[in-house]
Amino acid sequence: MKKHNFSAGPSILAQEVIKKAADAVLNLNDSGLSLIEISHRSADFVSIMEKAQNLVKELLSVPDGYSVLFLQGGASTQFLAVAYNLLKVDGKAAYLDTGAWSAKALKEAKLFGEVEIVASSKDKNHTYIPKGYEIPADASYLHLTSNNTIFGTQIKEFPTTNVPLVCDMSSDIFSRKIDVSKFDLIYAGAQKNMGPAGTVLVIVKDEALGKSGRQIPSMLDYQVHASKDSMFNTPPVFAIYTSMLTLEWVKALGGIDAIEKINEEKAALLYNEIDNNPHFNGVANKEDRSLMNVTFTLADESEKELFDSLAKEAGLSGINGHRSVGGYRASIYNAMPIESVQALVDVMKKLNK
Amino acid sequence: MKKHNFSAGPSILAQEVIKKAADAVLNLNDSGLSLIEISHRSADFVSIMEKAQNLVKELLSVPDGYSVLFLQGGASTQFLAVAYNLLKVDGKAAYLDTGAWSAKALKEAKLFGEVEIVASSKDKNHTYIPKGYEIPADASYLHLTSNNTIFGTQIKEFPTTNVPLVCDMSSDIFSRKIDVSKFDLIYAGAQKNMGPAGTVLVIVKDEALGKSGRQIPSMLDYQVHASKDSMFNTPPVFAIYTSMLTLEWVKALGGIDAIEKINEEKAALLYNEIDNNPHFNGVANKEDRSLMNVTFTLADESEKELFDSLAKEAGLSGINGHRSVGGYRASIYNAMPIESVQALVDVMKKLNK
Repeated sequence: MKKHNFSAGPSILAQEVIKKAADAVLNLNDSGLSLIEISHRSADFVSIMEKAQNLVKELLSVPDGYSVLFLQGGASTQFLAVAYNLLKVDGKAAYLDTGAWSAKALKEAKLFGEVEIVASSKDKNHTYIPKGYEIPADASYLHLTSNNTIFGTQIKEFPTTNVPLVCDMSSDIFSRKIDVSKFDLIYAGAQKNMGPAGTVLVIVKDEALGKSGRQIPSMLDYQVHASKDSMFNTPPVFAIYTSMLTLEWVKALGGIDAIEKINEEKAALLYNEIDNNPHFNGVANKEDRSLMNVTFTLADESEKELFDSLAKEAGLSGINGHRSVGGYRASIYNAMPIESVQALVDVMKKLNK
Repeated sequence: MKKHNFSAGPSILAQEVIKKAADAVLNLNDSGLSLIEISHRSADFVSIMEKAQNLVKELLSVPDGYSVLFLQGGASTQFLAVAYNLLKVDGKAAYLDTGAWSAKALKEAKLFGEVEIVASSKDKNHTYIPKGYEIPADASYLHLTSNNTIFGTQIKEFPTTNVPLVCDMSSDIFSRKIDVSKFDLIYAGAQKNMGPAGTVLVIVKDEALGKSGRQIPSMLDYQVHASKDSMFNTPPVFAIYTSMLTLEWVKALGGIDAIEKINEEKAALLYNEIDNNPHFNGVANKEDRSLMNVTFTLADESEKELFDSLAKEAGLSGINGHRSVGGYRASIYNAMPIESVQALVDVMKKLNK
C-alpha cells in the first residue's frame, strides 16, 4: 500500500531524489566508487558542493556579499553559533518567542550575553505570531523563527528594521519567496525541505561577521567555514549530495515561484476542509497559519479511535500532533504531493457523513 | 576496471555495507518508506540507534559507566567540546603533539585555558611518536591522537597515568584491541573505519562529566547528549545507519580480534615491500608505523611519472601523500581487502625488475 508520509522531519523527499541518492551510494557518476567512500577533496565532490551552493544562490536570488555554507550540527548548533558570531561582547540580543524552537535558540544565546524577548505568544500556547512589537535599536540582532512546526504558525511578513535580522528557516526554506537581502543571517536544518538530516544550511552576509569581539572556536566560526568553502573539516557528503538533488528537483519544477503556488494549493485544500468540516478545529490563528505544518484537533475527542483507524487504513503516516499541542499535525512540505493531502482530506470527510 | 580505493577519508567501506545502505535509502526494512524520510523518533530509527550503540559496546567491551554517543560536527567539534567539558576553569590541559590533528585539537583548547604540550614530534616532521614524556599531575586531562593519518604513525602503547586520558581515535578505532577503561573519553569521526562522513562517535566516562565548572552550550554538552541518548536534536540518520551496518560487518568478521589480525597482515605485506624494495623508503619510524596509513616515498623522484602511470593502470586510487609529507600514502582501513594491498605491492615490484 502507498504510504502518505506526513512526518514533521526528517520528512518526505521527492521519489526521484531518493532513487538518485540510492544510485550514488552504489556508484557515483559511473566512477566505480560509492559517493560515501570518495575523498571530499576529490573533483567529484568539490563539484557537488559547488553545485549545491550555486543552486541555493540561484533559487533564493542570494545577493553578492553573502556566503552559502553547508555545515553540521543542525539548527541547534546555530543557536549558539549565532550568538558567538553576532552577539557583541557586552551587547544585547533580541528574540521573538514564537514557540519551542525560539525558546531553545534564546536559551543558548543567554550564555553569551543579555537577551531581550521582544514579544512572546506563550500566553496562547504559541497559536499566533506576535506583531507590532518594539525592537531595541541597540540590539546586536533580532532573531526570528519563520515557521513553527509544533504549533503550525508562520511569519507571513518579516519586520522592517535597522537591527540585523537573523532567521531560523528550518521548516520553510525553499517553500516560498523570501528577500534574502533583508537578513544578515539565515539558517535551516536540511531535514524538512532540503534533504536528509545531517547538514544545515547557513546564508550569511559577509560584512556582518568578525564584529562580535569574541574569540570563536573554529568549528563555530562562520568566517572560518566561509574562507574554506564549507570544507574546513570533512563535510557530511551524503546529506549535501542529497540536498543538491532536492534543489535540482525544485529548480526543475520551476523554482520557488512554482513551488510556492503548489504549496498554497495544498494548504488551502486542507485548511478548507478543517474550516468546513464541523468534526475538526484548526489550532493556529487563521492569519498566521503555516503552509508547511497544518495543526488541527477533533471537535469531539471520542472520535479519535475511529479517525486514527481510518487514517491508518488509508496509509496516512506521521499525523500525530506534538505532545505539547495534542491533536494532529500534517506536515506538507515541498515534496508532499497534493494527492497525499487529498487522501487526508478524504479521510476527514468520512467523519462528516 | 576494479578500483582499489586507498583514500585517507572518507574512505573505503565494505561492499555489502554500501549495498545495504543503498537499499535502505530506497526502502527501509520493507516499510515502504526511505531511511532518510522517516522520523528519528520512529520505532525503526530508535532501534537503529540502539543497535549501533550496543555494537560499539560489544565490539570494544565498553565497561559500565560509559555513554556511547553518535554526534555531529566531526572530530573537529570534539576539539572544543573536550575542553568545554573537561578542562577545569583555571585548570590546565596536557597535549601530546604528534601531528596536524593534535595541533588543531590543542589550538581549540587554548581558547579555554592553559595548554601544556608534554612532547612534540615536530622536530622530525612528526615521523615518530614521542615517548617517556612527563605528564603534569595537575592536568585536567592528557589528550592523545592515536593514529596520525598524514604522517603514518600510531601510538602502540598508551601511557599509564592518573591523569584522565582523552584520545582522538578517528583513524584507527575498531582496527585493533583497545582497553576503553584506560580512557575518560574517546572520540572518532566516522569516515575512516566506521562509516560515511557525517557522524562522530564519542565514548565518555559518565563520572568525568559535569566537573569543568563551565556553562556549556547544549549542543557541546556531553551530559545533555547522554541524557537524551544522542537524540537531543535530530541525529544524522543516514550516517548512523551506515555506521551500524559497518559495525555489524566487523562483528560478523569475528570482531576486533579478527580484524586486528587481518590489519596486521595487510600492513606487513606493504611494509615488507617498502623495506625490501630499494626503489622506496618508508616515512615513519619503524616502531611507530601505523597499521592504517602507510606512508612512503620514491628513492629516486625521477621515477614518479612511471610509478604514477603504473598505479593508474592498475586502478589504484587515492595514494598521493599529503602535501606536508609528499610521496605516497596508502590508507588500508578495515574495509580494504588484502587483494588491493597486493595490487599496490605488485605495482611497486614492477619498479624493481
